[in-house]
Amino acid sequence: MSGNTFGLLFSVTNFGESHGPAIGCVIDGCPPGMDLSVEDIQPELDRRRPGTSKFVTQRNEADQVEILSGVYEGKTTGTPIALLIRNTDQRSKDYGDILQTFRPGHADYSYWRKYGLRDPRGGGRSSARLTAPTVAAGAVARKWLREKFGIEFRGCMTQIGELEIPFESWEHVPNNPFFAPVADTSALERYMEALRKSGDSCGARLRVTATHVPAGLGEPLYDKLDADIAHAMMGLNAVKGVEIGAGFAAVSDKGSTHGDTLTPEGFVGNKAGGVLGGISTGQDIEVSIAIKPTSSILVPRASIDTAGQATELITKGRHDPCVGIRATPIAEALLALVLMDHALRHRAQCGDVHLSQPAIPGHVA
Amino acid sequence: MSGNTFGLLFSVTNFGESHGPAIGCVIDGCPPGMDLSVEDIQPELDRRRPGTSKFVTQRNEADQVEILSGVYEGKTTGTPIALLIRNTDQRSKDYGDILQTFRPGHADYSYWRKYGLRDPRGGGRSSARLTAPTVAAGAVARKWLREKFGIEFRGCMTQIGELEIPFESWEHVPNNPFFAPVADTSALERYMEALRKSGDSCGARLRVTATHVPAGLGEPLYDKLDADIAHAMMGLNAVKGVEIGAGFAAVSDKGSTHGDTLTPEGFVGNKAGGVLGGISTGQDIEVSIAIKPTSSILVPRASIDTAGQATELITKGRHDPCVGIRATPIAEALLALVLMDHALRHRAQCGDVHLSQPAIPGHVA
Amino acid sequence: MSGNTFGLLFSVTNFGESHGPAIGCVIDGCPPGMDLSVEDIQPELDRRRPGTSKFVTQRNEADQVEILSGVYEGKTTGTPIALLIRNTDQRSKDYGDILQTFRPGHADYSYWRKYGLRDPRGGGRSSARLTAPTVAAGAVARKWLREKFGIEFRGCMTQIGELEIPFESWEHVPNNPFFAPVADTSALERYMEALRKSGDSCGARLRVTATHVPAGLGEPLYDKLDADIAHAMMGLNAVKGVEIGAGFAAVSDKGSTHGDTLTPEGFVGNKAGGVLGGISTGQDIEVSIAIKPTSSILVPRASIDTAGQATELITKGRHDPCVGIRATPIAEALLALVLMDHALRHRAQCGDVHLSQPAIPGHVA
Amino acid sequence: MSGNTFGLLFSVTNFGESHGPAIGCVIDGCPPGMDLSVEDIQPELDRRRPGTSKFVTQRNEADQVEILSGVYEGKTTGTPIALLIRNTDQRSKDYGDILQTFRPGHADYSYWRKYGLRDPRGGGRSSARLTAPTVAAGAVARKWLREKFGIEFRGCMTQIGELEIPFESWEHVPNNPFFAPVADTSALERYMEALRKSGDSCGARLRVTATHVPAGLGEPLYDKLDADIAHAMMGLNAVKGVEIGAGFAAVSDKGSTHGDTLTPEGFVGNKAGGVLGGISTGQDIEVSIAIKPTSSILVPRASIDTAGQATELITKGRHDPCVGIRATPIAEALLALVLMDHALRHRAQCGDVHLSQPAIPGHVA
Repeated sequence: MSGNTFGLLFSVTNFGESHGPAIGCVIDGCPPGMDLSVEDIQPELDRRRPGTSKFVTQRNEADQVEILSGVYEGKTTGTPIALLIRNTDQRSKDYGDILQTFRPGHADYSYWRKYGLRDPRGGGRSSARLTAPTVAAGAVARKWLREKFGIEFRGCMTQIGELEIPFESWEHVPNNPFFAPVADTSALERYMEALRKSGDSCGARLRVTATHVPAGLGEPLYDKLDADIAHAMMGLNAVKGVEIGAGFAAVSDKGSTHGDTLTPEGFVGNKAGGVLGGISTGQDIEVSIAIKPTSSILVPRASIDTAGQATELITKGRHDPCVGIRATPIAEALLALVLMDHALRHRAQCGDVHLSQPAIPGHVA
Repeated sequence: MSGNTFGLLFSVTNFGESHGPAIGCVIDGCPPGMDLSVEDIQPELDRRRPGTSKFVTQRNEADQVEILSGVYEGKTTGTPIALLIRNTDQRSKDYGDILQTFRPGHADYSYWRKYGLRDPRGGGRSSARLTAPTVAAGAVARKWLREKFGIEFRGCMTQIGELEIPFESWEHVPNNPFFAPVADTSALERYMEALRKSGDSCGARLRVTATHVPAGLGEPLYDKLDADIAHAMMGLNAVKGVEIGAGFAAVSDKGSTHGDTLTPEGFVGNKAGGVLGGISTGQDIEVSIAIKPTSSILVPRASIDTAGQATELITKGRHDPCVGIRATPIAEALLALVLMDHALRHRAQCGDVHLSQPAIPGHVA
Repeated sequence: MSGNTFGLLFSVTNFGESHGPAIGCVIDGCPPGMDLSVEDIQPELDRRRPGTSKFVTQRNEADQVEILSGVYEGKTTGTPIALLIRNTDQRSKDYGDILQTFRPGHADYSYWRKYGLRDPRGGGRSSARLTAPTVAAGAVARKWLREKFGIEFRGCMTQIGELEIPFESWEHVPNNPFFAPVADTSALERYMEALRKSGDSCGARLRVTATHVPAGLGEPLYDKLDADIAHAMMGLNAVKGVEIGAGFAAVSDKGSTHGDTLTPEGFVGNKAGGVLGGISTGQDIEVSIAIKPTSSILVPRASIDTAGQATELITKGRHDPCVGIRATPIAEALLALVLMDHALRHRAQCGDVHLSQPAIPGHVA
Repeated sequence: MSGNTFGLLFSVTNFGESHGPAIGCVIDGCPPGMDLSVEDIQPELDRRRPGTSKFVTQRNEADQVEILSGVYEGKTTGTPIALLIRNTDQRSKDYGDILQTFRPGHADYSYWRKYGLRDPRGGGRSSARLTAPTVAAGAVARKWLREKFGIEFRGCMTQIGELEIPFESWEHVPNNPFFAPVADTSALERYMEALRKSGDSCGARLRVTATHVPAGLGEPLYDKLDADIAHAMMGLNAVKGVEIGAGFAAVSDKGSTHGDTLTPEGFVGNKAGGVLGGISTGQDIEVSIAIKPTSSILVPRASIDTAGQATELITKGRHDPCVGIRATPIAEALLALVLMDHALRHRAQCGDVHLSQPAIPGHVA
């Protein structure tokens, strides 16, 4: 497997290119008997899709998903669920100018070195467009986890460029185009507007959480729950850092204050971010990720071409000035896929009993 | 696989418990015909082993490795290499007091929830002792990568507790017990001495790098090189954060300055940390990790027991006041294992040609 | 992975149902830079497709394949190749009568027990129709193996029902609808005509071979080349037996005559079927498989329904009276997929050198 | 993974060589909380071990197993179970004569071609000695399957050389050194005695069964239960053919009589061998395998050496004149490992419910 399959037991095989005829995925391992229709998946795709505000790429894709298999009379059958999304608004000519030139900070150079060829159309396989099938698969995982355990996933932006965004409430997140947990996003809008006019791009920091996660998920030694979360998140386009719970702040902590105290009423604090020894504790899973600024910008950059000659380039086409904006639903989907896979892995070895049992008295997290 | 195997093609299956008769691993997929003996592995184990200074656990383990298979007349045969390390200084009685009590911040609670039982002897499987087989396997990977590509791995401590450690030179690292890249470690010694006396523990931040990495390693979409590095590092005991290249500093960067400029002489800067689009660029791989303070401390903590009753505990026994100190060789080994696996994965799909070729003219990184 | 992915490194993920909107597969791991178009795949699908003679099912499917991804400007990119085949002639109403009844010898009973539901439309996922994506993927593998090593795959029918078919020549195989290696197939036609009129079905025995296979393919201990061939073949619908080389005839052989003699000019004989110790020797790979008679027949059978009540059933609809007839190109495709996967696995561990080297003098097989 | 791991969820990683210091395996994925001690494993090893009669190799190995990990206070912990068996009676000098010569029908040629080197000591990794860890792991699987479902495994010899062995009763199997289901084995003894005197070897045919297997095990499309059984069996040293249920006899069957009739009381007949569409039906699993004659014999054979020169060789040392004799417990173990893995895979996707439920009324198999 050349890296296009996510998950061991709830496995998602992703295919397609940004400017090819279609993108999609095949989900193998979904439990049978769950109600599933396009309506369960499309809303998550809509949260991620481009063209929804002036702060994201203007490419106009409906991202309409088609279920090709694995569902019969409205229920999953336990066989592979193939999801297809046709590309409808690709404009390959936008990329004519950069056919032979490498964008600084972009994957086109490394893909060329690896595979010995270039697919310049929108980054081909390295495009953020390929996160759409991930989101679609995540929607299926979310549904099962919600119905089985009541797990809920939420994400929000906590910083955009130099602007830190204070956490006010989850309820604000769906009400602005930034997935920001604040009521007033005028400062964010001004910041992004200025950035867009300058032809530049910026980074972002996101927070993603899962609540009502049963204790016991995660497979030490190497496939710890947090290890697999880090794998998922660092594998998301443009991510350069991942934290669980306290993250880098743990470095300057002392052991006497860092470990979350256990009491008969549950944990006090959540510096662990819901994971101890790579296994979920029942606390909320807390993840934070750093997203770098988009490399496709209008500001001219010095670079080289495929012959190794110095040149200068400007990336035209339609691009997100901050890829972090649309990353929130993707990061939620990835977290769901990790938990789904580990729920099935746990069930394989330990059975349903541990997970479905009521929390041990006094250990409600 | 319940998470105890690392790597798809150079796969390391780890076994053992801190206080059982032995620990070890089986390496499957090592290329045949490489010279290999205990002398290639033992030095790395010695860098990691306990009891080497007063700033680490006083448990006295020689960590002598035995090669049980896969080597014939001094050369690897291509068949599994089994490595065995007998435990010799386990003292299970040290744990009598915490048999029924959970250490705040420790895996004993989550293991208990997952498997329905407790192995209190030194944390059983969750002990940092289980990193020894990882280091041993890493030594094999390092050797092959060095002989094949000239890749070298280095690591150092960049922060201990609140103390940031400036980078002076790699040459200082082997000369002090902290893996610190500074000539004068007296401040670190005073800090750790005070900590040890207080019975407390602290966190640490480490940097790990690989040089002379060929371009082209990494398997997008999901098994990107940086994703697998994050998986490896976050899977290391006590790690709470991972950064590649610029890491979280990328959030406040602009696109116009973040992407490393390509010139005919190579890249200018390395904010990418050696990875673009999940594929190595030929630049140095740069990783930074955050390690939390040890949870086994002498300072009394409030907690609960397995019956859910409130109690207080002190962890006696022998523990590292800063697990980050011995983590440097482990993190190097993990980085080596990731690169080894990806080198073989790349070779499977793309053949040896891409990797062994001289760098494309003008693209020397 | 719930069993729908074939191969570790050249991995084919199959999706779809007999009467759903589409079937297909995603190939991950195909080497980059190979010329590939629909014209490379369609001929193999045409060899397998239904409706080509009166001796196979009359379902009329063009089995037109669409390449959705992984190919750019006529060359493979190294990213996933998604292949889509729309179903166009499904008639679900044919199955109305058997909705609640189990066909003796059919998978509908075991699927119902496993997943707790029934997809009666043509057997749903258990239909032989799902071999089409396997054949399509096999065509891609065949092309690479032919270009890289000159490997050729051939198959033929060696027995149909009670009729043994003598081997005359490979050249006859494409000239008759039975894939029979004989010039005169009139006896076979009469046999099948009588069978068809009786509403019954029969079994078949096939032979599949690969020539010009390099020595060294196969991964002992458990993933031996012949083990993986057996896995592939026994996984083909209706197969009940697999032999490599001498097969069951080896039981009454003596060691003094069984082992193929090695001479400076190569092996004498091929009782090994091209595999020793699970590794290819350079001899032809020789496989023989037994295919049971189709369970969907017009002859009335006693059975039970989902309530456990006794009943009788006749399977209407369109079915193959001998599924073995169309199995030849499928078995060839499976053998190609196994060799392709092992070629990549071998290359990962041992490099290209061993495989591309000229045969060691005196060891030409 | 270079083929030394068996099973996806109950995965057994095998290591060691015939004449190295030790052999063994690591089992990952064993459910926690099962009683386990050496006494559960040693009896199965004793059934397989050499030196127990004059009809098997005279190498004297106690095959004493040591549990290195994964068991605490007599119960499995859910972490890896490492099993170690020291080699004690290796005599490498026996192989001095064949260092540079290839035995016809032996793996030494193909191993040399694959890995580019030879380990002549008793066949190194290709030795049947490496089935001991498989048997040990199988004993763990058997215990769990027996306690969970009541599954029992049995095997017997049905043919040795030209001698067919009629089935009289399972009760005779443990009472003779051939695992023959007959009361009077004098004919077998005479046959083997004559063979031994002639310095030759012969093949064998075995039958293996599992009873009380729950319906629903097996993962179509590709990892069908029978496909994985075929993989396991063909992967056993010297096996050249595998049949499920009717096997090759199905070729000449008609559909009207082949499919096992379902009645309210269960199936009538078991031509399916317990598997339909790759999924267990609840009937007994029935497997038959063909084992070729040993290639290490005293009869002189023409061959070549590593320089490609013609030569003649006689294999001294201690060898089984019929490797099929000791294969019965190994084949049982392999069948157990396949069912164990599929039980866990099924539980992951479908939960415990389907498997633990009482058989659906009227569908008792």
